[in-house]
Amino acid sequence: MTEAEFLARLRTLPLHPGARGLTDDTALVAGLILTTDTLVEGVHFLANDPPQDVAWKLVATNLSDLAAKGARVEGVLLNLPLTDSRWDATFVDGLAAVLSAHECPLIGGDTVSLPAGAPRVLTCTAIGADAPAPPRSGAKAGDGLWVTGTIGDAGAGLTVARAGEGPADLLARYRRPTARLAEGRALAPLVHAMMDVSDGLLIDAGRMAAASGLAVTIDLARIPLSTALRAHAPDPLAAATAGDDYELLFACADAPPVPATRIGSFAPGSGLALIHDGQPVPLPPRLGFEHGLR
Amino acid sequence: MTEAEFLARLRTLPLHPGARGLTDDTALVAGLILTTDTLVEGVHFLANDPPQDVAWKLVATNLSDLAAKGARVEGVLLNLPLTDSRWDATFVDGLAAVLSAHECPLIGGDTVSLPAGAPRVLTCTAIGADAPAPPRSGAKAGDGLWVTGTIGDAGAGLTVARAGEGPADLLARYRRPTARLAEGRALAPLVHAMMDVSDGLLIDAGRMAAASGLAVTIDLARIPLSTALRAHAPDPLAAATAGDDYELLFACADAPPVPATRIGSFAPGSGLALIHDGQPVPLPPRLGFEHGLR
Repeated sequence: MTEAEFLARLRTLPLHPGARGLTDDTALVAGLILTTDTLVEGVHFLANDPPQDVAWKLVATNLSDLAAKGARVEGVLLNLPLTDSRWDATFVDGLAAVLSAHECPLIGGDTVSLPAGAPRVLTCTAIGADAPAPPRSGAKAGDGLWVTGTIGDAGAGLTVARAGEGPADLLARYRRPTARLAEGRALAPLVHAMMDVSDGLLIDAGRMAAASGLAVTIDLARIPLSTALRAHAPDPLAAATAGDDYELLFACADAPPVPATRIGSFAPGSGLALIHDGQPVPLPPRLGFEHGLR
Repeated sequence: MTEAEFLARLRTLPLHPGARGLTDDTALVAGLILTTDTLVEGVHFLANDPPQDVAWKLVATNLSDLAAKGARVEGVLLNLPLTDSRWDATFVDGLAAVLSAHECPLIGGDTVSLPAGAPRVLTCTAIGADAPAPPRSGAKAGDGLWVTGTIGDAGAGLTVARAGEGPADLLARYRRPTARLAEGRALAPLVHAMMDVSDGLLIDAGRMAAASGLAVTIDLARIPLSTALRAHAPDPLAAATAGDDYELLFACADAPPVPATRIGSFAPGSGLALIHDGQPVPLPPRLGFEHGLR
């Protein structure tokens, strides 16, 4: 059974109205925003990844989903395996760092033993409140497409991690993404559509356009690249398809109140188009990650 | 690192006020009650257990925690692995049954792939509302100790499951416990203390007494045994230490408004004592499960 088939079966179950048909990364229950993700060793992270970075990513990627809804963070529930003492202790150090960096308290959770040799499986459920929750489907023709921060650093950081050498700045963006909580709260009441960039800028922008029933054009020359990335691997197309950025992508008519870059625009029609300095650029064969299988 | 040591480390992290120091099965956030449990293949269930029964237990045991707080069920989040199609399809059938039986909608969740051969790891996070949330620490001297339903069926059912033969009624109590949601809602506003019986009647009653700063005496002759258990294995001490009952255990001064059995009483002092027809009975060496490691 594929993930799509499994989800189709789950959609036949009685669904909460706040589940929104299981089509969104978050659910809304009694005014709270809920999101949950599970990380699996060997699938989403490697056995020799630093445990403190696994902790960081587990929490920060969930908080990024709250940021995209403009939520205030209530806290997280964590379901954690008891494994070896050194790994577990270092993991808790990473939890302390990521919770502190995002001013996020621990609400509760569960700890379990695993059979010997089993891959670690870790779950975080993040809870937010007071979320304006702009949909990803609300972009309007004429809106600009904007993105916070810089794109592609995490993707280059993954290459650095695999190679075992390269710029530390890029590695840090891969291993320790920061959820854009403050930006999300400032933007959410003002924008027409918002989501976080997790699977890749192009695929996520295409999803926003499709959900909004519009066409979107992105100017590759405008994609914001960090100084470190410009020095290391200055390919905007690679940056825009790498994913793991955890920046906020949003549609709005006016200049936003937080630092962000206008990289494109929405128009009547459908589909994603690329330009570079005004010239059309063919779409790459792969726009980003189709699934969460990273 | 033991589970207790790991929990001690987690308690050094910034905690949400609703986490209550990570001392309770549930947390309270913005008026909602949250509880989460992870089941691991080979630890909490067996690879050849029927998938629909794994689904049932995953959800029902979490809902039992909500029942003990007198909560109305909002729904559940589920973090599920994609494994083999037949297992997954049968698992979803079990989900449909347990959600329907408890009038519990699905709120959301996550699906992940596992490395080949990895044990299944499944997480349920249950959310309840409007919970009076009686503590386990509120029993008063002179209160009776009461329990809903019958005790020991699930423990005998586990023996039946292992033997591969025996009364179907007992097996069903082990494989498909029912969360006492309606009873919990009726009792919660009236009782002084309440919890569900998951680790064993004696150990859980002892915990309630300790949390309340009282002594508790239980009359083994009064422990309610089902007709099936009386015919199969009529030992009240075995029943009272087996666990997995998911009945409600509560302290109150007056007769409760739902069917329940008064099995003991609270008095000044400390500790758990047993009697049988008025005669003292020594405590067994094992009162129940010390951890969730079943």
